Order: sequence, then C-alpha cells, then structure tokens
Amino acid sequence: MKKRLIVDMDGVMSDIYGQFLKHEFEDLKIKQDLNSLIGKSENEAFLNHDIYVNSENFFYEASPIENSIEALEKVNLKYDLFIVSSAMQFPLSLGEKIKWLNKHFPFIHWKQVVFCGSKELINGDIMIDDHFKNLDTFSGKTILFSQPHNLNRDNGKHLRVSNWKEIEEILL
Amino acid sequence: MKKRLIVDMDGVMSDIYGQFLKHEFEDLKIKQDLNSLIGKSENEAFLNHDIYVNSENFFYEASPIENSIEALEKVNLKYDLFIVSSAMQFPLSLGEKIKWLNKHFPFIHWKQVVFCGSKELINGDIMIDDHFKNLDTFSGKTILFSQPHNLNRDNGKHLRVSNWKEIEEILL
Repeated sequence: MKKRLIVDMDGVMSDIYGQFLKHEFEDLKIKQDLNSLIGKSENEAFLNHDIYVNSENFFYEASPIENSIEALEKVNLKYDLFIVSSAMQFPLSLGEKIKWLNKHFPFIHWKQVVFCGSKELINGDIMIDDHFKNLDTFSGKTILFSQPHNLNRDNGKHLRVSNWKEIEEILL
Repeated sequence: MKKRLIVDMDGVMSDIYGQFLKHEFEDLKIKQDLNSLIGKSENEAFLNHDIYVNSENFFYEASPIENSIEALEKVNLKYDLFIVSSAMQFPLSLGEKIKWLNKHFPFIHWKQVVFCGSKELINGDIMIDDHFKNLDTFSGKTILFSQPHNLNRDNGKHLRVSNWKEIEEILL
C-alpha cells in the first residue's frame, strides 16, 4: 500500500514570500533582504500582510517554488498524495488555490486537496510543511521546509530540507 | 479531553434536497415526491443537478436542517467539533459555504472547518454523515443521517438517525 503523504501549499509549493516581497516593492518601494526576515512571522515581516492576503489574485498569482512541479509529478505516482492547506482564514483564497493547483499541478485531482483551519485532524504517514505548529501535532514522519520564518528555530523533531531536490532524494 | 466530532454539511446541516426541489419546481415545474427519490443519488434524482451545484448561491441560499443550529450550539461546547465538507468538486461552493456557516452557525470558528475532496484522511472519534462512502472508511463511531438517497440501504455498520433531536439524545 502506498504511504500517505501530506504536502502544504504556502511556503512549500507556492512562493508566498516572493509574492509579499513583490507587492511590498511595487506598493511601498521597500526591498527587504531575506536575512532581515529570519525568525519573523509573515505577519511581522510584511507591513501590509493583512491587506495582501485578502487581495484578489494574491494567492492565484504566486509562483510555484522551484522544482516543486517536477518533483510532485514523480512523488504523485509513488505516494498517496494529499495537498493540505490552512486556507480557511482567507475565504477569498479558497477558489484561487484550486485554480492555482489546476494551472500549475494539473496532475493533482480535486480528491487530493484539503483546505482546513487546523491540520490537527489530518492523518497520514509523512507531512511536509514550513510551520512547526502543523508538524508538531502530526503523528507520522515530519519534514520541515525551510522558510525565513522558521530558520532561527529547531526543536529537533523534524527533518529540515531547503528545496525540492532534497525532498526528492528523501522520498524517491 | 473532549471527543473529536466530525459533522458533514450537505444533507446533515444544510438542506440540499430542499434546494434541489425548490429549483426544480421553479425552473421545470416538476414537483417530485420524496418517496420517489429513495435510493437515487442526487445526481440521478435531479435532472439539472450539475447545473444547480455549479450555480452561484445554490449552496449559500440553502436552509439549515431543522434543529441543527440549536443542537450544534450545544454540541460545540461539549465536543471538539469539526465541520468537514466534500466541497472540492464544486469550487464555487467553497467561499459560499464559509459565508453560509458564518451566517447560520456564527459560533463555529474557521479553525473548525475543513473542505476536502475525500474524507479518508480525517481522523476523529465520531462522524455524522449521510454518505456510506464517508462513514465506511472512518475509524471511530459512525452515525448515518437519513436522506432519501440512503434510505433503501443499511450495511449494519452505522447508527441511523433521522433528525437532530435524535443526535442530541445520543451526544448530549
């Protein structure tokens, strides 16, 4: 039986930092260095965070993270793959996220997608996520995807990866 | 620790049959008897099923099922309640379902809501649903909410209820 793999969207498949930085530069002419964002939540890091996440097309126009498409296409054949996104806080994002997945990851069926408020009731064998709060309550194997907000922490419970090539090496 | 209770939306909280019957009467002047719907899937039962479920406000304008609001308000205090809806097939429904919940069930926080394609990765102690496919793969206690499509079947695995008063008696 295939192992059930749970993959997060924002910050793992979707380059949300890139979107924040792009919007901040366009709107405010602010150009933050990635190093200055280390350890800050996205909410702390970006002045207009709440405006952006509630803006039309913010999630739809995000770029896929490098190599995520190629890697997930292969991973999808070997694992019982589910994309699980904490999207419920931003109702506008729900439809956009489905459209985004259909556009960039057409090999992922709608039956493989879950939008939730909390990931604590998600059951699986492996989880890839950039947030400790999601990984800490998961009962299976956990992989932490590096993003500026999590770079200054390590609770020793999760395997840290920095890109999709590393994930491929672990999973394939 | 509170028990985790998983409650379905369509056909358990939301009167989707009422919506289909109302639209069919308004559009086609068809007035189906509930008995004639027994054992038919919603897709088989309603001629314009696919048009309706993809129409704007179809899900938003559905009425809550009798006594569901009063019962869930009490249940919400005693259980770790999650609303889990197979909404992913109809992208338009995602935003509407959140709005519908906020309107009729304002005591339910967005952290308690999950939209998915398949419920097989949902973990909990008790599930209330009107579909065998969701209950059959659930590891906890299962409660089947009667709807015309499930009335002619019984696989002996689930406790059948016909209304929210019966659910209150079981849960409270």
